[in-house]
Amino acid sequence: MTSSAPRGPYAKGIQRRQEILDATIDVVAEKGFEGTSLRAIGEAIGVSHAALRHYFASREELLLEVLRERDRKSQSRVADEPTVFARMAAAADDNVLAPELVALHTTMMAASVEAGDEDARAFFTERFARSRAVLAADLRNELEAAGRASDLDLEMVASLVIAAFDGLQIQWLLERSVDIAGTLRLLERILR
Amino acid sequence: MTSSAPRGPYAKGIQRRQEILDATIDVVAEKGFEGTSLRAIGEAIGVSHAALRHYFASREELLLEVLRERDRKSQSRVADEPTVFARMAAAADDNVLAPELVALHTTMMAASVEAGDEDARAFFTERFARSRAVLAADLRNELEAAGRASDLDLEMVASLVIAAFDGLQIQWLLERSVDIAGTLRLLERILR
Repeated sequence: MTSSAPRGPYAKGIQRRQEILDATIDVVAEKGFEGTSLRAIGEAIGVSHAALRHYFASREELLLEVLRERDRKSQSRVADEPTVFARMAAAADDNVLAPELVALHTTMMAASVEAGDEDARAFFTERFARSRAVLAADLRNELEAAGRASDLDLEMVASLVIAAFDGLQIQWLLERSVDIAGTLRLLERILR
Repeated sequence: MTSSAPRGPYAKGIQRRQEILDATIDVVAEKGFEGTSLRAIGEAIGVSHAALRHYFASREELLLEVLRERDRKSQSRVADEPTVFARMAAAADDNVLAPELVALHTTMMAASVEAGDEDARAFFTERFARSRAVLAADLRNELEAAGRASDLDLEMVASLVIAAFDGLQIQWLLERSVDIAGTLRLLERILR
């Protein structure tokens, strides 16, 4: 075998870790955030609490890893879209298929602003900073490629677009007639 | 006495209720959401748990009433501002003086999207619906007063502005360089 893919015990560990993440998503979908205990996840996948703790030190660490996994999948699915706003609208269309993950995102994001939840705070602080920087750079590149200029502060625009996305998702969770992708297209239109 | 102000036992009840609300705000400021138990509030103001429960059936009901009170105060403070965006920017300037209340708002808003938190869900569902309707009507009136027309869906614009406000506050709680009022002014500028 010359494959560089992990094998043996290590590969098995990666596979088990992924099984736990997948099971957690199912449990979140079925029981919501409050009902997603390490015990419920262990029961769903048939592993002991101790085995779970071997892979994830805490419930919070596991739930944040679910969000990281979701970000990775979402980014790879929308990567081919041509513009910042097309990517955001595609991500929104993706998210509305999994309301429970949008709710998990919202709950963990709120936890990050409370004292005492340092892992969530670090995750979202870093995620926001990176998202703002990437979005601002992408918007700048799109403008340059189109031979256009903007007198807007693109860091501020990035912050606005991300805020709109998060806020619209919350409104949508409570009122499904709120059109996340459509409202983001309106924002794109007025930004041009 | 011909005053219509309540007096006697009833007035005392209103006063006590207000004291509890004020004490709760102080406890939230000092101990955060997680630390704000009915016990901690009772100790801060020197009333028994039973007395607290006479005024508020649960911790959640009390915390939602704190948010209602904050909305009322905020609305009366910004009422003289001439436009929707001036009112929102003034509210934002007001909010940054009380980060703990912004965090409480965010936490309760996230709680509202989780199953099982029906009071918070009802509060925020109704609050969003009313805010969208009021904002859309205000924007329409401003346009008419200025003799201008817009081909934008003003309900959608209202939803966008509220989402931006909520999302920016969350980013600001994690990174104080995020300029809530400035970014709302940018949104106002591109909307014109």
